[in-house]
Amino acid sequence: MKELERLKETHVSTREIFDGDILHIIKDNILLPNNMPATRELIRHVGAVCIVAVTDDNKLVMERQFRYPVDKVITEIPAGKLDSKKEDPLLAAKRELKEETGYTADTWTDLGVFYPAPAYSDEAITLFMARDLHKGTQNLDSDEFLDVSLVPIEDMLKEIMAGNINDAKTQLGILRVARILGI
Amino acid sequence: MKELERLKETHVSTREIFDGDILHIIKDNILLPNNMPATRELIRHVGAVCIVAVTDDNKLVMERQFRYPVDKVITEIPAGKLDSKKEDPLLAAKRELKEETGYTADTWTDLGVFYPAPAYSDEAITLFMARDLHKGTQNLDSDEFLDVSLVPIEDMLKEIMAGNINDAKTQLGILRVARILGI
Repeated sequence: MKELERLKETHVSTREIFDGDILHIIKDNILLPNNMPATRELIRHVGAVCIVAVTDDNKLVMERQFRYPVDKVITEIPAGKLDSKKEDPLLAAKRELKEETGYTADTWTDLGVFYPAPAYSDEAITLFMARDLHKGTQNLDSDEFLDVSLVPIEDMLKEIMAGNINDAKTQLGILRVARILGI
Repeated sequence: MKELERLKETHVSTREIFDGDILHIIKDNILLPNNMPATRELIRHVGAVCIVAVTDDNKLVMERQFRYPVDKVITEIPAGKLDSKKEDPLLAAKRELKEETGYTADTWTDLGVFYPAPAYSDEAITLFMARDLHKGTQNLDSDEFLDVSLVPIEDMLKEIMAGNINDAKTQLGILRVARILGI
């Protein structure tokens, strides 16, 4: 039997649970691959981008930001939501990097899409590497509070390998870029 | 001003939105660092574990699993939820690896905790490397359907660097372990 037939779950019906400002939750009735009924609770998300921005001397543009759900300030790469499902991720990445950090970049590389929580969310994040950076002025929303700094990629790698960087996209993005750069 | 004072958001009140089988959603009123009111919608999650299991000849124990929210079969490392917030992550990792793949391991290394979506979820996933593996028999729940295979770590790295592995924990976990092993 083909893989998809052996593993696929089939949609039966959808119930809307919560239509919030950020979270949109549905609960679906489905059929398992053996045709037994089950339910799936999940988040519908507009999608997002994140950016590993590397200076000419291999420093990374990093942010420190309070994340309310985990109740602490954590270290992250720049990131943000798409304006809509149809927005070009590259345009969103350029906007978010500029707004959050002030930096613009001449060279952008699309490193592909990842799912942060595919068991219960359809969020897809497109990862970019940005190079040939130019420093400009930050333009935060009035409800955004974050600190920006430049950190040598070797220092970030040490922190990641020590287990001190707890944001998934930040670990993943920096490890991808370090491997591309042979660091 | 200290970083935490400059960035911290303060809890005011909590409203329960949805208490589902998997998702537990709350909406909090908070104060921003500038004392302006705002809201935060978020998921309370029990926590999880994931495991990069490496054979003596540097193959990885990989799974193929249908993920309903993203509507496709994706490649993942073994993973699972804790039974409760208090469960020892190492015990959960041993259980999930055995149940999902049949493998047990003599050597376990805790590589730390990561947050898959700290903007809207408190989920914390503890990452383990498992070595000195022994093959046994899978023991899936009746509603679990997944294929297990051994894949050389070099092949997984090629797929990750090509952008073909879309699960965040899988990219992150394999990149961490490859760096530890000097591959």
